[in-house]
Amino acid sequence: MTTYNFTHVYVESRGLIGGVKEKQGPLGSLFDKNYEDYYAGEKTFEKCEQLMVKEACDYALRKANLKINDLDLLIGGDLMNQLSTSHYFARNLNIPFIGMYAACATSSLIIGQAALYIEYFLANKVLAFTSSHANDAERQFRYPNEYGVQKKTSTTITVTGAGACVLSSKQSKIKVTSFTIGKIIDWDYKDVSDMGKAMAPAAFETLLTHLKDTNRNIDDYDCIVTGDLSKLGFGFLCDLLKQEDMKTEILNDCGLLIYHENQADTFCGGSGCACSMLVSMSDLLNKIEDGTYHRIMVIATGALLSPIPIEQKESIPCIAHAIVYEGVTL
Amino acid sequence: MTTYNFTHVYVESRGLIGGVKEKQGPLGSLFDKNYEDYYAGEKTFEKCEQLMVKEACDYALRKANLKINDLDLLIGGDLMNQLSTSHYFARNLNIPFIGMYAACATSSLIIGQAALYIEYFLANKVLAFTSSHANDAERQFRYPNEYGVQKKTSTTITVTGAGACVLSSKQSKIKVTSFTIGKIIDWDYKDVSDMGKAMAPAAFETLLTHLKDTNRNIDDYDCIVTGDLSKLGFGFLCDLLKQEDMKTEILNDCGLLIYHENQADTFCGGSGCACSMLVSMSDLLNKIEDGTYHRIMVIATGALLSPIPIEQKESIPCIAHAIVYEGVTL
Repeated sequence: MTTYNFTHVYVESRGLIGGVKEKQGPLGSLFDKNYEDYYAGEKTFEKCEQLMVKEACDYALRKANLKINDLDLLIGGDLMNQLSTSHYFARNLNIPFIGMYAACATSSLIIGQAALYIEYFLANKVLAFTSSHANDAERQFRYPNEYGVQKKTSTTITVTGAGACVLSSKQSKIKVTSFTIGKIIDWDYKDVSDMGKAMAPAAFETLLTHLKDTNRNIDDYDCIVTGDLSKLGFGFLCDLLKQEDMKTEILNDCGLLIYHENQADTFCGGSGCACSMLVSMSDLLNKIEDGTYHRIMVIATGALLSPIPIEQKESIPCIAHAIVYEGVTL
Repeated sequence: MTTYNFTHVYVESRGLIGGVKEKQGPLGSLFDKNYEDYYAGEKTFEKCEQLMVKEACDYALRKANLKINDLDLLIGGDLMNQLSTSHYFARNLNIPFIGMYAACATSSLIIGQAALYIEYFLANKVLAFTSSHANDAERQFRYPNEYGVQKKTSTTITVTGAGACVLSSKQSKIKVTSFTIGKIIDWDYKDVSDMGKAMAPAAFETLLTHLKDTNRNIDDYDCIVTGDLSKLGFGFLCDLLKQEDMKTEILNDCGLLIYHENQADTFCGGSGCACSMLVSMSDLLNKIEDGTYHRIMVIATGALLSPIPIEQKESIPCIAHAIVYEGVTL
């Protein structure tokens, strides 16, 4: 049993910052703010990412009419080595901090963890946040974009953005009802330019575990999104599900939803911690709020890629954590 | 309120692996196994660290007479970028996994987190583990040791080792009774060769918060250890406490306890995720088990150092998380 159910955990508010390409995508207008370039007035990409996460948190707090000191706990994570974005942001806040890492699955991990603290009355207000930036992530994990290394068509592009949410037991239209913790899955894929395919089995495993744990089937959800499997990885997941005679019509992938299908230089789709956070916290939760959806699941997937093991000829272990959101009629 | 108290969380078993220098130290004979060199038959330091954590977990499981499949949850973290030691170890286990990072404070973070899962009946058996290795950590954070860069006397040496423990509600002589989550503290120290001084204020903050939250004072503990502040940082912490008219006699530091005072090439003391894990899980918990101590606190401290922000002239944010262990008469 790896699924935890919650009875009184709500999304009190959300704050979302997008980057240049994310603004141009179909969800751009739903974010609280979009940056016009990759620096936003900062000297480095890293500092730009720290600013993004700060602004996302500011929006989330302001919308809930909260001050920093009203928070009991911060839970954050990001792609930068040593979670430096989260740490350099949180050092100014003087609030207890928990750092977590699950690559691009971090969004579901921090939200699930925050939900546990609310459910068991360990905190009244928890701020969960994550972020990613195309330029700092790419130079850390592969090559600086400035080198102009030709990318394979199977590659994904790291989403530039940040998302934050306040979870609490204060009733809102959006309830967090389940959290399924993933296992690390490694099907021996080694291509760092095709991580979607490596991650698909992890999404598959977590989806099956979740349905078994909750005794539900796919029809019990209005929408299930993975994030971020790329076109190739998402196709692979659908193939795996079809082998189990499962429907795939209500499935989609955050990496495909964040950009237009033919948007320039977005290759096989978006990735990065911010991708599933931005997509789920904007369009999907809006649709819960307005009654379009009643119950959705976000299966954030992470390629636990690390450059040194890859240089040592290792494969890419992956993980997927799932969060279920449900609508509440107030 | 950032301290959580537990009523039925026990340390069911422990597994500890030490390295070359750790074997030579005063606690060497207390570990389950010590490696004779920095490779242990593996091709790289990174793979050696993965083997260490595997062996530490094997010992913990065997002592509790458990199989992998008896575990409900794994919680791990380490110093390697993207927590690669923990991930590459856990990918073979097929058990839900949570990755956490707090630099050298990771040991207390994973144990505190595991304790929450036991306390609230979210898991029956949780395996918490962490590790560090002098040679892979040094080349990741500073320079490869093979370069022979001269070290400042204020530097600490990363402990080579791994530790694991099984937490459960099965009564043992060692109870986990409290977990205090730290805040990120940054007093603007920038010297990456003197991280003890940077971390001392975080230990100070967490200690004061813990005592306030629990309405206790230092006399309520038989021993309080920080880890790993170095000689300089520990002296600084004692100075800070004396300013508050607090006693420091029962305080010590894991980085000072793991090596002999004049042990060759140990500089200002030990550091790394394994340091506080090895010291607390061996000698200190043994002393709880044999009745020497009734109540101890381990305040693991982490310098949230990341090479890129440091190159960008940033200071070093730090954090400290505390765990309280108490003896139980069976």
